[in-house]
Amino acid sequence: MSQVKPTKASESYDQLKHRVSEANLLASTTAILEWDQETMMPNQGVDHRSAQLEQLARMTHNLCVDPQIGELLSVCEEDPDLLDQPGVEANVREMRRDYDRETKLPATLVAELAKTSSLSLHAWQEARARSSFREFQPWLEKLVGLLTQKADCLGYPKDGERWDALADEYEPSMKARDIDAIFTPLRTRLRVLIDEILGAPSPPTNRFNETMLPLESQKNFVRFVAEQIGFDFTAGRLDTSTHPFCGGSHCRDVRMTTRFHENNVNDALGSTMHEAGHGIYEQGLLYENAGIPLGQAVSLGIHESQSRLWENQVGRSIDFWKWGHPKLKDFFGEGTGHLTLEEIYGGANIVKPGFIRVEADEATYNLHIMVRFDVERLLLSGDLTINDLPDCWNEKYKDYLGLTVPDDRTGCLQDVHWGMGAMGYFPTYTLGNLYAAQLFETASSKIGNLPELFARGDFKPLKTWLNENIHQHGRKYLPAELCRLVTGKPLSPEPLMRHLEGKLRPIYGL
Amino acid sequence: MSQVKPTKASESYDQLKHRVSEANLLASTTAILEWDQETMMPNQGVDHRSAQLEQLARMTHNLCVDPQIGELLSVCEEDPDLLDQPGVEANVREMRRDYDRETKLPATLVAELAKTSSLSLHAWQEARARSSFREFQPWLEKLVGLLTQKADCLGYPKDGERWDALADEYEPSMKARDIDAIFTPLRTRLRVLIDEILGAPSPPTNRFNETMLPLESQKNFVRFVAEQIGFDFTAGRLDTSTHPFCGGSHCRDVRMTTRFHENNVNDALGSTMHEAGHGIYEQGLLYENAGIPLGQAVSLGIHESQSRLWENQVGRSIDFWKWGHPKLKDFFGEGTGHLTLEEIYGGANIVKPGFIRVEADEATYNLHIMVRFDVERLLLSGDLTINDLPDCWNEKYKDYLGLTVPDDRTGCLQDVHWGMGAMGYFPTYTLGNLYAAQLFETASSKIGNLPELFARGDFKPLKTWLNENIHQHGRKYLPAELCRLVTGKPLSPEPLMRHLEGKLRPIYGL
Repeated sequence: MSQVKPTKASESYDQLKHRVSEANLLASTTAILEWDQETMMPNQGVDHRSAQLEQLARMTHNLCVDPQIGELLSVCEEDPDLLDQPGVEANVREMRRDYDRETKLPATLVAELAKTSSLSLHAWQEARARSSFREFQPWLEKLVGLLTQKADCLGYPKDGERWDALADEYEPSMKARDIDAIFTPLRTRLRVLIDEILGAPSPPTNRFNETMLPLESQKNFVRFVAEQIGFDFTAGRLDTSTHPFCGGSHCRDVRMTTRFHENNVNDALGSTMHEAGHGIYEQGLLYENAGIPLGQAVSLGIHESQSRLWENQVGRSIDFWKWGHPKLKDFFGEGTGHLTLEEIYGGANIVKPGFIRVEADEATYNLHIMVRFDVERLLLSGDLTINDLPDCWNEKYKDYLGLTVPDDRTGCLQDVHWGMGAMGYFPTYTLGNLYAAQLFETASSKIGNLPELFARGDFKPLKTWLNENIHQHGRKYLPAELCRLVTGKPLSPEPLMRHLEGKLRPIYGL
Repeated sequence: MSQVKPTKASESYDQLKHRVSEANLLASTTAILEWDQETMMPNQGVDHRSAQLEQLARMTHNLCVDPQIGELLSVCEEDPDLLDQPGVEANVREMRRDYDRETKLPATLVAELAKTSSLSLHAWQEARARSSFREFQPWLEKLVGLLTQKADCLGYPKDGERWDALADEYEPSMKARDIDAIFTPLRTRLRVLIDEILGAPSPPTNRFNETMLPLESQKNFVRFVAEQIGFDFTAGRLDTSTHPFCGGSHCRDVRMTTRFHENNVNDALGSTMHEAGHGIYEQGLLYENAGIPLGQAVSLGIHESQSRLWENQVGRSIDFWKWGHPKLKDFFGEGTGHLTLEEIYGGANIVKPGFIRVEADEATYNLHIMVRFDVERLLLSGDLTINDLPDCWNEKYKDYLGLTVPDDRTGCLQDVHWGMGAMGYFPTYTLGNLYAAQLFETASSKIGNLPELFARGDFKPLKTWLNENIHQHGRKYLPAELCRLVTGKPLSPEPLMRHLEGKLRPIYGL
């Protein structure tokens, strides 16, 4: 049995931070390998990469569950003077959360999950390319089996459900029941709005999204916008991948990706502003706190609020396009010369139920999430078999979005998440939309003149406000606490509905 | 004290392979991070990257020096039946070599070297950009201090010198004294040839190397050639970096880089064929042996022979250009339409003493190496201070190449090696030239019709011959043994001088 004999609690705290930082340092290496696998790695590298990731996961887990961390935590938790010092209480609280979580998981399960996820990610890519859920089914069965084991090791309250145990990793303390209580009324109100829109007398034209533009110019344009809104390219990269994401190893090395279609610069721009929002959050964490909770993002819901805010509240606003419209000409010449500001703004805000989540508009997007949330809960509770997954998925698309899914690629194979072993993750996207709307209302009222600033391409005051109010805190507050602290209110669907109705009804002449 | 109680030696051997593979697996992660640092990492990532590399070096070292490896080795070494099985003796011999080497180095020194090398690599890049050796000097002082410690920990025979201890890592069993015995007469003969060439009556025109060609087309062209000579892009990549190199984590994920100048496709092609030669060697190692000595390259000298052979014996031959000349038109259109085959072949073989090693022709190249070899030996023996390094370097350039070095960027700051903590490495380049010429003579006589094959772009027989005679063996033989086995003779300067004189004298009308 290891023994810790510090002369005082602050020494224990330093040792604790050192040990936790070592584990996070190794995890930051994993992050680079994961990014590399999605963007750079040659095809034949996949087997060896899964072995590398399995080894790193095993080693990181071993560092995280070192009993000395538990002993050091206990010493720190018992010293009120230490806990009174700035940041200490929050760091210790969050290190305890992580430690308790990690020590519940057997090393073999952690390694098996890491290895299976890496292999199954590749299997998903191939199955998706061939639009064959049946090819991917054995991998998903294996993954759901492992995730069920994981959830049961972690445990959940008697009045909760297995899904909660997994979701807690992404959105601390959020329960399926609480999410249901927000999603059910939100679904009703969204469907009313969407139905109104589908019957609107004067929908915007789609010309913007039918304009063919060269990929190289699109790359230059989205990179320019990412830089303009505040992503620092000396501390990050932008690459291309099938499923856009933002990763990287720390706040000075943030790796985001996007994707391109010749006829849809709007998709590349939305993806890029979205990932840049994540990236700006990561870059806004304090380097001095790298490797400890105060230097880490608080939750995926809050993370997603940052990406959504830049993608939607900023990037789909009329004020953004007052600045962006002439910029298009700088990058595409006459390629966009035929488009009016109204056509671009309308085109960026077309609402149309579709099959693909990442291509969805702001209004229907949340219905895509609700499908996944329902399916995940059923899979994990055992009320749905993997075999029946495509049918369940397709029925829910019919019910929520009124659509008949034509094939697996367009249906239940479209997302990377399950193939990576991530369940309990999807609802954080809609939480992000809710947080984004609520935070943006507060930012607007505090800063005052955001429309004028956007119209002249000045995004710095907004970025600075987010840096100060959200980013720099890291995990100092729990997400619900942070929301209340910054906006003065608990999370509510009202700001999101105000945002959507206030913007979309005029665009659609309602 | 750990205890190994195998029921039989073959179990010990399996355990041994497992442990060594684990260490090499972690080292293969390091290789990806190193590649990433040179090609992808944003500037601000450097401090954190050095911490990641330091951690991985420490962990890898710990795995390599695990006393259980020593115990398992002893068990295996004492079982003649085990050693008689195919491949076992060589694997055990080489694992012993690695283990003995690693256990001589304190973990703190290994970690310090890894961290300093990463930081100093960055310092070198900045110092080089500003052409200021004095900026880099403190880093080099620190590195030479650490390398001196390393050499002294490793030890060297009384009749040897400190340099030998470092060089043994790159070219097993090669001594400075032996290299001197080859380099001294080689220098004399090269200088005679170069002097003849400099006074030649009809030198080739330089038009090929003055032809401006778009970088994108150059990229497509060199990628095409790399693929054509046998580099497998499903198991590797080609990117751009300041100093071209070939890295990657195993035979199915090989990462090579090259560089481009608008007026010199020949430089990009030479660099690419060179690195592709390294890459083809790596890809020719057997995946079933990944992580153990039989799946690793035998030495840097032999590695370099593979790159030189493709770069020089193939890529600068008249037969290669009989095929390559019309291909140029496919990639550059009229950009190369004015060039005759004779002008291209002559242009690819111009001999001209210059300052930059990686831009040097086949004949003068070896003189660049001799300068570095002399300087390294003097630095490590203590007969030269870092402060006096630029003067020493510049004097030797005057003596060997007849050139007055104008500044540090063009002088002693040009190479990445010392900044990465690699000393004892440079002579492997000239050993590579010697091996390449000797191996190519053998391959030519065995295969028979290489000129005709090259002229129609069929490089497969040569690649297959190298796969079978060199690559697949991994570290089965020591380099000198492999040379004798394949060519029937010990390494000699004769084939290289035959190659150079036989090609260059006719080109220069001598």
